[in-house]
Amino acid sequence: MKTEIGAVNCLYPLPTTLVGAHVKGKANFITIAHVGIMDLGSLSLGMNKVHYTNAGIKENGSFSVNIPSQAMVKETDYCGIVSGKKRDKSVLFDVFYGELDSAPLIRECPINMVCRLVKTVDFPKHDIFVGEIVQTFCDEDCLSEGVVDFSKVDPILFVMNDKSYRKLGDPCGKAWHDGKVLLA
Amino acid sequence: MKTEIGAVNCLYPLPTTLVGAHVKGKANFITIAHVGIMDLGSLSLGMNKVHYTNAGIKENGSFSVNIPSQAMVKETDYCGIVSGKKRDKSVLFDVFYGELDSAPLIRECPINMVCRLVKTVDFPKHDIFVGEIVQTFCDEDCLSEGVVDFSKVDPILFVMNDKSYRKLGDPCGKAWHDGKVLLA
Repeated sequence: MKTEIGAVNCLYPLPTTLVGAHVKGKANFITIAHVGIMDLGSLSLGMNKVHYTNAGIKENGSFSVNIPSQAMVKETDYCGIVSGKKRDKSVLFDVFYGELDSAPLIRECPINMVCRLVKTVDFPKHDIFVGEIVQTFCDEDCLSEGVVDFSKVDPILFVMNDKSYRKLGDPCGKAWHDGKVLLA
Repeated sequence: MKTEIGAVNCLYPLPTTLVGAHVKGKANFITIAHVGIMDLGSLSLGMNKVHYTNAGIKENGSFSVNIPSQAMVKETDYCGIVSGKKRDKSVLFDVFYGELDSAPLIRECPINMVCRLVKTVDFPKHDIFVGEIVQTFCDEDCLSEGVVDFSKVDPILFVMNDKSYRKLGDPCGKAWHDGKVLLA
């Protein structure tokens, strides 16, 4: 039985990320799960304009997207609670850099994407930052036959509706394959 | 040990959705998992311009986002394999409507969001459709104390890297909570 629940966003779960940027010349990280994919080479971040990090992304035209594992739930949640205005969050992590000088990466995260800002879409209360992925790092032990294996990455999924973090579950099908049985 | 794997998009998993629209006056559905959230009231779809559905979304300024459950893996995958140019995919589902006449909804999907197109961002090969959510339906048995319970929704998560569908796993933390232990 269907029930109307208002205009509630139910596009969950989404992957919880740690977005890195330089703000006032210093590495900072913020937890962002309102993310998306535009096309295979680019992604989006929906970031409330109140955040400290937005100015740094605009100023430098670059940012990083780091995918934390379940083992990093506390640190990941902390970076969403505390503002870089008040605390130096970079001390939590071993920071390294790829091709872009102002896109700090987190070594403890199994996946790190270096992004160049290609577009900013202005929303009433949010900056939507669209980044082109220019370089990706992965922990070697999170690959299976050269392909990123998300069972090994063990990402933190986010559901806003009940404010929960969730694990990734088991494989249950193959894309562009399982529907073929209905082609007949 | 970090290894560089090229400029690979690793912003996965994302929820697999069935996007509904009217094309040439008729309900059509397409599988889209390159989705995202812009802000609490809106979402994005990254849709290759080759698709049949794009013209319908542009013409009518509306679409739906339906969240299928694991029980619908075959039908969901099928809608991503077959074009509405060739097959009438609406016959697979019990179709109903909410506030917008040209946003067909799928009764078998536990969640249905009616969206008004508010922006189209032009990418080289993709239309990025941004929709404001105007109405949401949920199966009553997928609610817990009035809140959408994704364990009951049992969504189909998508990972492009190995072209797999995945289940949602167990809760493993609370957002805006678990990081407080690091505040001291």
